[in-house]
Amino acid sequence: MILLFTDFGLTGPYTGQMKAVLAQQAPGIPVIDLFADAPAFDPQLSAYLLAAYAPAFPVGSVFLCVVDPGVGTDRRPVMVEADGRWFVGPDNGLFALLARRATSLNAWTIDWIPDRLSASFHGRDLFAPVAANLATGQPVERSLLPSAAIDRPGWPDELSRIVYVDVYGNAMTGMRAATVPPDAVLTAGGTRIGRARTFGDVRPGEALWYGNSNGLAEIAVNQGRADRALGLTVGEAVSVGP
Amino acid sequence: MILLFTDFGLTGPYTGQMKAVLAQQAPGIPVIDLFADAPAFDPQLSAYLLAAYAPAFPVGSVFLCVVDPGVGTDRRPVMVEADGRWFVGPDNGLFALLARRATSLNAWTIDWIPDRLSASFHGRDLFAPVAANLATGQPVERSLLPSAAIDRPGWPDELSRIVYVDVYGNAMTGMRAATVPPDAVLTAGGTRIGRARTFGDVRPGEALWYGNSNGLAEIAVNQGRADRALGLTVGEAVSVGP
Amino acid sequence: MILLFTDFGLTGPYTGQMKAVLAQQAPGIPVIDLFADAPAFDPQLSAYLLAAYAPAFPVGSVFLCVVDPGVGTDRRPVMVEADGRWFVGPDNGLFALLARRATSLNAWTIDWIPDRLSASFHGRDLFAPVAANLATGQPVERSLLPSAAIDRPGWPDELSRIVYVDVYGNAMTGMRAATVPPDAVLTAGGTRIGRARTFGDVRPGEALWYGNSNGLAEIAVNQGRADRALGLTVGEAVSVGP
Repeated sequence: MILLFTDFGLTGPYTGQMKAVLAQQAPGIPVIDLFADAPAFDPQLSAYLLAAYAPAFPVGSVFLCVVDPGVGTDRRPVMVEADGRWFVGPDNGLFALLARRATSLNAWTIDWIPDRLSASFHGRDLFAPVAANLATGQPVERSLLPSAAIDRPGWPDELSRIVYVDVYGNAMTGMRAATVPPDAVLTAGGTRIGRARTFGDVRPGEALWYGNSNGLAEIAVNQGRADRALGLTVGEAVSVGP
Repeated sequence: MILLFTDFGLTGPYTGQMKAVLAQQAPGIPVIDLFADAPAFDPQLSAYLLAAYAPAFPVGSVFLCVVDPGVGTDRRPVMVEADGRWFVGPDNGLFALLARRATSLNAWTIDWIPDRLSASFHGRDLFAPVAANLATGQPVERSLLPSAAIDRPGWPDELSRIVYVDVYGNAMTGMRAATVPPDAVLTAGGTRIGRARTFGDVRPGEALWYGNSNGLAEIAVNQGRADRALGLTVGEAVSVGP
Repeated sequence: MILLFTDFGLTGPYTGQMKAVLAQQAPGIPVIDLFADAPAFDPQLSAYLLAAYAPAFPVGSVFLCVVDPGVGTDRRPVMVEADGRWFVGPDNGLFALLARRATSLNAWTIDWIPDRLSASFHGRDLFAPVAANLATGQPVERSLLPSAAIDRPGWPDELSRIVYVDVYGNAMTGMRAATVPPDAVLTAGGTRIGRARTFGDVRPGEALWYGNSNGLAEIAVNQGRADRALGLTVGEAVSVGP
């Protein structure tokens, strides 16, 4: 299984062009859109989102990850094996959190250079062929990296910012709910928000936070859109207090 | 063939996470997005839309349907077999109209409970595995329901409201065109609208209603967007008169 | 491989209904969304976009193309073989540019008429079954056309208009970058724009034009959205000067 994690959107040609490469070079392997709207141009926010969602997929899954504002510059292309799952993409911090949380970890810089490498679309020209090789068990020219090279030491274990707003207007933070004290109050957009187990535990229009289905602390409004009701946008700070 | 009918959107992780379950548990079965933007949080409007679109698919198709504002509450998970097609989802009226219109009908409550059932994502944890089992001919723990349990007796046979606005701004009603007198005038957003066979039968900018390619009465504007031109939104009432 | 090129969007039922036809009639053939947001209702702008993106796909690929404001009128359904790739859709100019640029070209009108042909959805009822036949090597009832019938003689070789705005706000023109003098200045939305190799060659917030990964001249703003910063929309004229 190959999972796509990008900020490409689903319309336009970019996701389709990558899928065409995968259909040719990894025929018969399912290709699934995980996030096509990862935090745009922001490898750090994306890193916390990817680390929360990737572990639920089966061992052997290959994640083709392109949030790559530095495409065409000298940032390194990398591949990472973390607890049996594979990740391919730019070395800009995107894999820092899942690497830090992994029990077993190997990281390589990709040495292979395709015959045709456009300046602006390494997702299609470089990363997709490498993902296809990983998914089909073909070798990739590579050099081992020290695992620490993938980490970003200055980034916290839990990011107290909003990393994603979903289709319903719920706002995911970069904090794992299990690390937040159950009686903690989150403050976002100037509103103090208590924890609840389900939406129905608060009044209509009232905000709550809870552990979402992938373990992140998420802010919602019962029968409403948290993003609009509380004025929340991706990247915004969330504070945790008593 | 498995058809997805949800209000999840295509971006974000929800549709992809369901597809990953299907790829693992029903390998090789095509999975197709039918509607990812069914009327949000509204099982009734969704029920008329699903009933109009489902019968065109081949017998044996499995519809994985999640418009589920009550997720996590005690609404029953159900599976329905209607004229040889299968439907899986919450028992909130979503299947009421297609059940009522079916020649042969069986309905069950789903007794199987997955080992891991999140409070907020039964589409991934419960309904997708059941759909995979149906598509691959595996058994599902279940209890027969009286067919009438699936119906919602108070809901009319034809719903005189707008149930969907498409990408071109055309507004579908919940009425089957064949049940509306050919010379009837529809009134929506304060505008009186006559029937025409094709867009070209009215002047540019003028509104018309017609039977769409799946049999619903649909309101459009020649060379324009009916939603903007007439101020129409999903849920709005449409009246039928001489 | 079947590539979809439409203005249908990805939400709503239209793309899914076409994919269901393809899954039944061309089982096992990958179906990939290339553009679901081609220039709406505009076969001319779409023609330059399609001609730029199609040649990168493998010989034998089938393109199912529906930008079809004249659906239901007497415009001819056609199929075109250009340099070993196949194209199916309405004869409204959509294939004019790729036909003109092809080394080998054959064109036919489609004589086959499906048993069920709705007035408003030939993509599902007519073009998808034909594409499935082409992808699986089945015959299609057809009549040879003179190749010139596909062309639109009045349309220029390079279109100095914006044909697409991508998810990042970059604006593609209908001109192949290789045909524009390297020192040419483009003017769009009242702004004069010089060529650069990469975004980093200009200051943040400054506009540039460059040859994109499929060879079109594209206008962008370093660390910004060209569409908003320069007020650009699809269809707008771009002038080329010294």
